[in-house]
Amino acid sequence: MAVSDYFSPRDGGDTAFTFEATKETFGAGALAEIGSHARFLGMGRVALYTDPRVAKLPAVEIATRSLRDKGINVTLYDRCVVEPTGASFKAAIRFAEEGDFDGFVSVGGGSVMDTCKAANLYATHPPADFLDYVNAPIGKGRHVPGPLRPHIACPTTFGTASECTGIAIFDFEEMNAKTGIASPRLKPSMGIVDPEALATLPVTVVAANGMDVFSHAVESLTARPHTHRPAPEDPALRPLSQGANPYSDINCIEAIRLIGENLERAVADPADSEARERLMFAGMLAGIGFGTAGCTIPHGMSYAVAGLVRDYHAEGWPPDHPLVPHGYAVIVNSPSVFRHMGPACPERHLRAARALGAQTEGVNKAPGDILADKVIAMMRTIGIPNGLTDVGYTAADVPALTEKAWPQKRVIDNAARPITRDELAHMFEGALRYW
Amino acid sequence: MAVSDYFSPRDGGDTAFTFEATKETFGAGALAEIGSHARFLGMGRVALYTDPRVAKLPAVEIATRSLRDKGINVTLYDRCVVEPTGASFKAAIRFAEEGDFDGFVSVGGGSVMDTCKAANLYATHPPADFLDYVNAPIGKGRHVPGPLRPHIACPTTFGTASECTGIAIFDFEEMNAKTGIASPRLKPSMGIVDPEALATLPVTVVAANGMDVFSHAVESLTARPHTHRPAPEDPALRPLSQGANPYSDINCIEAIRLIGENLERAVADPADSEARERLMFAGMLAGIGFGTAGCTIPHGMSYAVAGLVRDYHAEGWPPDHPLVPHGYAVIVNSPSVFRHMGPACPERHLRAARALGAQTEGVNKAPGDILADKVIAMMRTIGIPNGLTDVGYTAADVPALTEKAWPQKRVIDNAARPITRDELAHMFEGALRYW
Repeated sequence: MAVSDYFSPRDGGDTAFTFEATKETFGAGALAEIGSHARFLGMGRVALYTDPRVAKLPAVEIATRSLRDKGINVTLYDRCVVEPTGASFKAAIRFAEEGDFDGFVSVGGGSVMDTCKAANLYATHPPADFLDYVNAPIGKGRHVPGPLRPHIACPTTFGTASECTGIAIFDFEEMNAKTGIASPRLKPSMGIVDPEALATLPVTVVAANGMDVFSHAVESLTARPHTHRPAPEDPALRPLSQGANPYSDINCIEAIRLIGENLERAVADPADSEARERLMFAGMLAGIGFGTAGCTIPHGMSYAVAGLVRDYHAEGWPPDHPLVPHGYAVIVNSPSVFRHMGPACPERHLRAARALGAQTEGVNKAPGDILADKVIAMMRTIGIPNGLTDVGYTAADVPALTEKAWPQKRVIDNAARPITRDELAHMFEGALRYW
Repeated sequence: MAVSDYFSPRDGGDTAFTFEATKETFGAGALAEIGSHARFLGMGRVALYTDPRVAKLPAVEIATRSLRDKGINVTLYDRCVVEPTGASFKAAIRFAEEGDFDGFVSVGGGSVMDTCKAANLYATHPPADFLDYVNAPIGKGRHVPGPLRPHIACPTTFGTASECTGIAIFDFEEMNAKTGIASPRLKPSMGIVDPEALATLPVTVVAANGMDVFSHAVESLTARPHTHRPAPEDPALRPLSQGANPYSDINCIEAIRLIGENLERAVADPADSEARERLMFAGMLAGIGFGTAGCTIPHGMSYAVAGLVRDYHAEGWPPDHPLVPHGYAVIVNSPSVFRHMGPACPERHLRAARALGAQTEGVNKAPGDILADKVIAMMRTIGIPNGLTDVGYTAADVPALTEKAWPQKRVIDNAARPITRDELAHMFEGALRYW
């Protein structure tokens, strides 16, 4: 049976959808090709963005050598920060403005790639005010007026898929809010996705990021159908969160299958490079999927879970400050969301469960529960925290979590059906503890 | 089970693959959006390429009105020809050179889109000699030195997927050969794929193009694994025919499923716009697939079948000259190729048969035969000619067909294993008659 039934049913919403897969080169050792690709894109003087931790890994050296071998001038900026802020974005932008670069390279995780996107944008099309391009309501949500300079993004982890999306996320300290910039123009010119970069990734990070990939895929698959979203005023400016569509569906179902087949394997055996390679590929597919469909409620809730952290520290992440890793912050909500939202598109919850490897024939449970139970079983196997309680929250925190998540309209309005604030609180309650 | 197992097995060939899905807007009525998209791409003065037949259809008027509504200057070039030639390319190029356009729009079939790609290329980066960019051995196969001007491609048929590939095919009269130009730079900036354009397509054309889509998908799926192709000297210049890879596999399997579910429906009922819409989507997916994987033997054979035509005329195509429609020229070879090449990748032939809707459990036949038999059954149902005999060839023509197809190295070398010239002749013999 074909994967998608979300073609145009002409029910009053948008009648078309726009998609695009950023150019990507995928394969073990591909990072050493970067010099050729940079030349092809016309780069001669490049700013290479990374962070202090990644700067010490082989990846930055491999990329720098390959670029220089092709006669490209490389200047290193190694002051990107994990969970970037307005201040860290501004510092990265200043560096780009002062350097007169004709191209950008980012080597690192989502934070590094996002920082590089922002630096490229603000240096290429300087706005009157920093908030001009930032998503409303925090910023003015202005459209990016033209193409950016070429940018090659090289992830050294997997899951964020920042290399193939037009999104750059940061914390805006002045308003104590997680926000971002979103435009198709922000998409890197290409991604170089090299599974060898994952060799040193701690298994806890593999587990968390694998669950983030799963969430990107399943949230896109169960999002509002693109035909239920009102048509855009300007068709050239469809939002990145278009809702589920036949193209995102294909990529997402396959990402879920790959997670189901490889995540437990990869966590059980850190030397299983085959499983890690497939997880990285799944991350890319899910990125292509949510890059056109958009995430929904679990990601909306995650911003609150991460933002209100008190003293949680996770093994495998820098110990310098409390942090709920993004993958944990998302997946601790997901089973509760599946149980509550399953009835809005039961068939899609069932298909996700099946793709993940759940036995669904003859099972007398609601589809949302089948999916939730399968995910909970995986969480236990791979060592994910047991709900919000395990990352430091109690029932008393539900009002504050709800208060903080509710304004995440971009993702919450992208759910299969509209929800109330009370329902959001109910889903936080259901996420406190699973076993 | 995950769709692909063609990840990097490190067996001496290429270790990475590059893919990209051109930006596409898909949906009924989407053509009327073209003005907005053209503005977004910075177009102000546009050459609109079409052919004399399409010029009379609503599509050209819809596109022109939408462009003008956004203040864009539009000049019509309606002299593209079906099955373009060197001469028709040159005329189209002259028009582009003289017009000083900052953007291109094509509205029509593969011939129109291909002509527009060539016009854009030669006007933007004029070569010393016409053959410079043409594929070797007929031309010099020079690389395109930089980006082209923006081009929006709007298919009014389906199957060629020219809107998402970097290929432009033409007949080079001086050498009596079908050849082309191939470069990722040739890919249009975006495609606008509007199923409403298919409303007037004759069912014979739907049948032939549907089979062409199937062939793109199944040839890519059963092509040489990308890891068996030698690594490229310059990784930024991987060929378009990279061989089967995990990304093409996903798109191709889904295209085959959609053909299996919708082709017979669409041919049985010309008013079934839902089935036509899904076929057009399948055509796009297969295009994304073969755009990175590449076609193989049935397409290589088709150039000979089309090129040596004597007096065959097909219902639904212009009656002015003998022509074996491309879809027929391909699919009449396919079952014979499946029977012969099945053992080179049996599991993939089986999966294709299953995706197409064949019963495969408990069937005691070779996978290549299962697939061949299923395709033959479909050919009979939808009125495809019964092998080469039905399009005017006899056993006596096999040497000439083989002679003409053998130089199609780009596609023949992309088969799952190397073949001899005798094997090619054997496959033509097997394609003479099926029932």
